[in-house]
Amino acid sequence: MKMLDIILLEDIDAIIEQLKLHQNYSFSNFNELPMPWFGLDIGGTLTKLVYFEPTDHGEYMDTQEELLRGKTIRHYLVHNKAYGETGIRDEHLQLDEVIMNGRIGTLHFIRFPTDRMIPFIQLVKSKGFAQMSSTVCATGGGAIKYAREAELELAMQLHKADELESLISGIEFIAENYPDECYYYDNPLDDEKCRQVIWRWSSARCSSTDEQYQREGRNESGLQYPYVVCNIGSGVSVLVVRGHNEFERVSGSSIGGGFFQGLCSLLCNSQSFEDSIELATRGDNRNVDKLVGDIYGCGYESIGLPSDTVAASFGKISSPQDRENVRVEDLARSALVTTANNIGSIALNVAKQHGVERIVFVGNFLRVNPIAARHLANAMNFWSKGSKKALFLKHEGYFGAVGCLDKLVDVTEMRRLLRAKGVNISLDEMSP
Amino acid sequence: MKMLDIILLEDIDAIIEQLKLHQNYSFSNFNELPMPWFGLDIGGTLTKLVYFEPTDHGEYMDTQEELLRGKTIRHYLVHNKAYGETGIRDEHLQLDEVIMNGRIGTLHFIRFPTDRMIPFIQLVKSKGFAQMSSTVCATGGGAIKYAREAELELAMQLHKADELESLISGIEFIAENYPDECYYYDNPLDDEKCRQVIWRWSSARCSSTDEQYQREGRNESGLQYPYVVCNIGSGVSVLVVRGHNEFERVSGSSIGGGFFQGLCSLLCNSQSFEDSIELATRGDNRNVDKLVGDIYGCGYESIGLPSDTVAASFGKISSPQDRENVRVEDLARSALVTTANNIGSIALNVAKQHGVERIVFVGNFLRVNPIAARHLANAMNFWSKGSKKALFLKHEGYFGAVGCLDKLVDVTEMRRLLRAKGVNISLDEMSP
Repeated sequence: MKMLDIILLEDIDAIIEQLKLHQNYSFSNFNELPMPWFGLDIGGTLTKLVYFEPTDHGEYMDTQEELLRGKTIRHYLVHNKAYGETGIRDEHLQLDEVIMNGRIGTLHFIRFPTDRMIPFIQLVKSKGFAQMSSTVCATGGGAIKYAREAELELAMQLHKADELESLISGIEFIAENYPDECYYYDNPLDDEKCRQVIWRWSSARCSSTDEQYQREGRNESGLQYPYVVCNIGSGVSVLVVRGHNEFERVSGSSIGGGFFQGLCSLLCNSQSFEDSIELATRGDNRNVDKLVGDIYGCGYESIGLPSDTVAASFGKISSPQDRENVRVEDLARSALVTTANNIGSIALNVAKQHGVERIVFVGNFLRVNPIAARHLANAMNFWSKGSKKALFLKHEGYFGAVGCLDKLVDVTEMRRLLRAKGVNISLDEMSP
Repeated sequence: MKMLDIILLEDIDAIIEQLKLHQNYSFSNFNELPMPWFGLDIGGTLTKLVYFEPTDHGEYMDTQEELLRGKTIRHYLVHNKAYGETGIRDEHLQLDEVIMNGRIGTLHFIRFPTDRMIPFIQLVKSKGFAQMSSTVCATGGGAIKYAREAELELAMQLHKADELESLISGIEFIAENYPDECYYYDNPLDDEKCRQVIWRWSSARCSSTDEQYQREGRNESGLQYPYVVCNIGSGVSVLVVRGHNEFERVSGSSIGGGFFQGLCSLLCNSQSFEDSIELATRGDNRNVDKLVGDIYGCGYESIGLPSDTVAASFGKISSPQDRENVRVEDLARSALVTTANNIGSIALNVAKQHGVERIVFVGNFLRVNPIAARHLANAMNFWSKGSKKALFLKHEGYFGAVGCLDKLVDVTEMRRLLRAKGVNISLDEMSP
């Protein structure tokens, strides 16, 4: 039985508590944590990488090795926007002057397809971005799947962080550091009037009333609990968050980004998510979906279903004749509307069931995809009769990676402290 | 403004109450209602027709005209199993010795595609199945859409019954008349051990324990409230039923039979629902869907997701290579599993939210489709951790039509009574 040096985050808190009871550690000098700091979220389709670039060198004594490594990484990561054929840095999401672990720096947001994971780890090694001893903290399904491969083939360690814990922790970290993170849509399906409005979550304000609230001195910071998080990646998870570290996954769906892209690749021969979104944006789902009006000749008002409600997704194209006039754009739009409406309905039911007002949508399905967000916003307005707004966060799919990076501090610092004291923590949980 | 002779069922009860207050009608001689008795449910895809064939002629004085008409209808409807290219009589569902409106007879169950509605009305006319004055009571979206066409082009009247009221009324009528109507699945996804078990709804018994319950004299009849009804036709409606005539539509979905058949016609070039089901039965969705195990390399046990849970429907086929080895059977199966799992999740959430134990699935999506029913049963077992069973009713998609036929008695009898008294009820609700 092979023992792997893997510390589960669930265990860290208990270990810290135990150490505090028996020994007198200082937990303040976190800047000893060796650079670079990476957080990795290995999802079903996309891997998200968050990199913290320190910008306060003057004030800190980085080792020569760290300075050199930092230079190499900056040269490669920060001076490029694309890596190989598939890696992309989302420059518009970059956050400057973020304080993390006592250091000031810039957060960079990078993504690549999960099926390029092994080449990525090899790149990190070959470019000397990480010491052999440095720790990559990873979350997402792939963190478990690739932990073994990283250990066996690359002699690197992936510290695993719980996916949902990382997600929530990342949302809370960004919300504290970036007040303009959250927004909603006014008039979501009206092409002319639709606009994004900043929602100051910390005090439930929106930008148009900020000034007034600030005059009144109501400047609460941080998130307001409870809230529902609907994370739309390849699949969908719905969580209720009631407080710091107090959350539960209460629902989910297999109809998410993977479903949308799968259908678009089959029906429209679309090669990429971006292509699919572009097609959907130009399409009209009413040529594909059967609406309430198509069945009733009018709305079914007594139960609140207007005539333009979709009664049966893809319901209009069961015969070859029906299919003749349908364009691939229409099919892509229908796949998108099907996905968005279903998710909106699930999230709203969760919110109702748990008595929660705020519903936040995150995940990479919303990337380059205002159409999906606008359909979600519209679904939420409609089904809640205007009582609930769909909220969106600008860093969409990166929260798991951010939460992971944030936790990395605890993990690696603890590891260093434990080793220095001769404590050897080896949890074997890769073996059956 | 054209006044149509349409009485809404919602109004009938109020009218009856008013008449009872002021006049002394006998409501017992319902057999004056002119034959034949038809109930029609015009859905988004299929039209369901229920025909009551009286078998008690010896005891009743039918008019010569009625006897002749009855003979014509029997000759055409009852001696055939198929009508034209698209009409089908479901002989296995036929119910004998049913008592309706004081008469004993046989209920016949017939269906045809809704796009054949106009030819059907013309057939009814040309074959002399109905007097010009006879009343066809219809429900479903098409009852509203075709009421105008029937009136304008065929000089026939469609009395409209509310769709959901008819559905519930039909379920309760059949449940009272046919104790073996309801069943569930034991070991739903095990091809060898799977079996249908009769569920005696009236006393929450199953067949294996019937004897014991009967010895104990626990022979309650009728339905036990509350229950959730999930009606899967082209689209999906979910209702909570708390008592006789006490129900509410609380949820719904556009991902139902229309979605399944739409996808199968696009992805598999399937020409009919039967073909699609046949394909799906031979397929394996694991070649198409991304499972939890495909992402994690194992289950995500801490949140209760085993490795064979579908994480992303259609999530495995985003690239051309992935699609090469996928068979159309696999795609059809994935469309089916996507639909069934999503519906199961919605129905279960409704049941939880409203504190209801019994969940009944009906609608023509379940016709010739034990695979869908078994996936629903499995989803229900899994997500409720065995606490809730999916129940199914043998007359699947015909309850709306039955409820409509049952109500027809009230409508036409009331109309006759009202006319005899010179009361003229014309509700104009077709005009804007």
